[in-house]
Amino acid sequence: MTAPVAQARLLRAARGERVDRTPVWFMRQAGRYLPEYRAIRERHSLLEICERPALAAEVTLQPVRRLGVDGAILFADILLPLVPMGLRLEFAKGEGPVIHNPVRTEEGVGRLVAVDVRDALGPVLETVRLVRRDLDPAIPLLGFAGAPFTLACYAVEGGGSRDFLETKRLMLGAPRVFDALLARFATVVGDYLAGQVEAGADAVQVFDTWAGVLSPADYRRHVLPHSRRLFERLSTLGVPRIHFGVGTTTLLEAMREAGGEVIGLDWRIPLDEGWARVGADRAVQGNLDPAALFAPLPELKARVRDVLGRAGGRPGHIFNLGHGILPGTPVENVRAVVDLVHDLSG
Amino acid sequence: MTAPVAQARLLRAARGERVDRTPVWFMRQAGRYLPEYRAIRERHSLLEICERPALAAEVTLQPVRRLGVDGAILFADILLPLVPMGLRLEFAKGEGPVIHNPVRTEEGVGRLVAVDVRDALGPVLETVRLVRRDLDPAIPLLGFAGAPFTLACYAVEGGGSRDFLETKRLMLGAPRVFDALLARFATVVGDYLAGQVEAGADAVQVFDTWAGVLSPADYRRHVLPHSRRLFERLSTLGVPRIHFGVGTTTLLEAMREAGGEVIGLDWRIPLDEGWARVGADRAVQGNLDPAALFAPLPELKARVRDVLGRAGGRPGHIFNLGHGILPGTPVENVRAVVDLVHDLSG
Repeated sequence: MTAPVAQARLLRAARGERVDRTPVWFMRQAGRYLPEYRAIRERHSLLEICERPALAAEVTLQPVRRLGVDGAILFADILLPLVPMGLRLEFAKGEGPVIHNPVRTEEGVGRLVAVDVRDALGPVLETVRLVRRDLDPAIPLLGFAGAPFTLACYAVEGGGSRDFLETKRLMLGAPRVFDALLARFATVVGDYLAGQVEAGADAVQVFDTWAGVLSPADYRRHVLPHSRRLFERLSTLGVPRIHFGVGTTTLLEAMREAGGEVIGLDWRIPLDEGWARVGADRAVQGNLDPAALFAPLPELKARVRDVLGRAGGRPGHIFNLGHGILPGTPVENVRAVVDLVHDLSG
Repeated sequence: MTAPVAQARLLRAARGERVDRTPVWFMRQAGRYLPEYRAIRERHSLLEICERPALAAEVTLQPVRRLGVDGAILFADILLPLVPMGLRLEFAKGEGPVIHNPVRTEEGVGRLVAVDVRDALGPVLETVRLVRRDLDPAIPLLGFAGAPFTLACYAVEGGGSRDFLETKRLMLGAPRVFDALLARFATVVGDYLAGQVEAGADAVQVFDTWAGVLSPADYRRHVLPHSRRLFERLSTLGVPRIHFGVGTTTLLEAMREAGGEVIGLDWRIPLDEGWARVGADRAVQGNLDPAALFAPLPELKARVRDVLGRAGGRPGHIFNLGHGILPGTPVENVRAVVDLVHDLSG
């Protein structure tokens, strides 16, 4: 007998199967725009929440309860695997992540600790188990991790960046070192996501958030081989794989080659045009501009209709934003999008 | 008799005419990567240089002397027109521009001062005159300004931004106010560029640097009409118009519609694919990744060859980066690109 979750809309759509209604969830649906999340963040830091499975599970479940979305996504941070590898990560107030010992040399790559990430990130895997236990059995739980390139961006820059110049310098000036770094991350992320699936995740999303800073030629030469190796490994886990990035219009064909049953589309490309680049034999996820959630309701609804119209009712569309929910987003608008997607596609 | 400058490579290429060698210049070719610029910046702030024509002219001429580029570009900042309009602009150390009184309401737009920008920005126009007097008569001088949308981004956000959320909120929530703001900027920028051409600029570049944060639908609805009005006004000036943005792959057709003999291409789209989107009847400018200037010389040369190869010797290509030269760029690499472009296309 198949577990009921395997027939959930989100997983059916990810496999390109027909669904009763278009599934919808939101990147960063657990986060600062939710008052119940802010209440927990008043007492605990981001890293504390990630390290305490009961808290992280509660935060994961909050948006499922409030919004009626078709999936839960594990609450964690893509940078967590860097910590046991020896990178000193801090979330500085208002500045985003800071890594105090960025990796920019062969020696730096050599110093990365070879960890058993399933051991080192035990609390995250325990969170997966707790959520899977407490979540409606019919609703899928998504695991996730950063892609090798995007993790390398943070590890090399020592935090966020506008130009990603240090990352590109390493890529261009010391391609073998860059290659070794991405290979390390590909292995760790593969182990980590395998652990999440073993712990109960029903699908996985790989965030290659910053891939869009690269030209297609650089992506193909320096990034694609590592992402492909990761996706090949994930294919043995038996769950749908979502491959996400922003600003990736010219990379979509290459990201498809790297792997994933579902390819993310940001708002810069109309969904139909993006799906044509991805290919009709894959599913797509997206692609409302997160800023649209701040629009007056009639305008917001028109945009939801437009996205659904461009999907044209073809099987294989998961409704989502083109990037994460922004702080300050009106919760009632997020809820309205869930209802509207379900109503219009029913 | 035609002035010799009208037959300069850069202007011929901008008009889609055959050239002896591909013209090359660099956005931010006057800037922090040049020691002679840093020497001046040690004694003067950015705004001081802009306000003193002799200094600004000297800084404009520095890269022409050192690099052998095919054009000079006026040294100024795209935010200068905001100052006489009443916005309190400051360049905070290491933070980029800060506007202390951002415009986010109808009242804010109403408070903008109706200035005669040619009077208020007299020092900039005097700089144009000084440069045109001292520059090799065969080398064109490019004037420039920010596009209405990109100026609005800074005015609304109060500086740079990652998500441009305040700008989009205004655009979506109060489209008439947003419209009025862009209309104001379109008028001011038109006057300003007309003044630059009267003072001696041989071509103009309109920087719509942040247009790429918008979906094509939002660009067409909220931005294109203002950019088109600006470009129509500029068409009366009798000089080539360059229309630039980054991350604009899906906007290229709409930017072409808005106007410009030359459309900028960033490095995210291969030059041939970008030119196909722009259309063969327009010229293109680009499209090396600024980070490529940090690569070892053989790698850098391979990338220059690739860009020229994709241009395929067709008339109407101006070699440039996809965005401005980054601080810390090795000057000898910039010089090497100029020589290589000239050698390979000769």
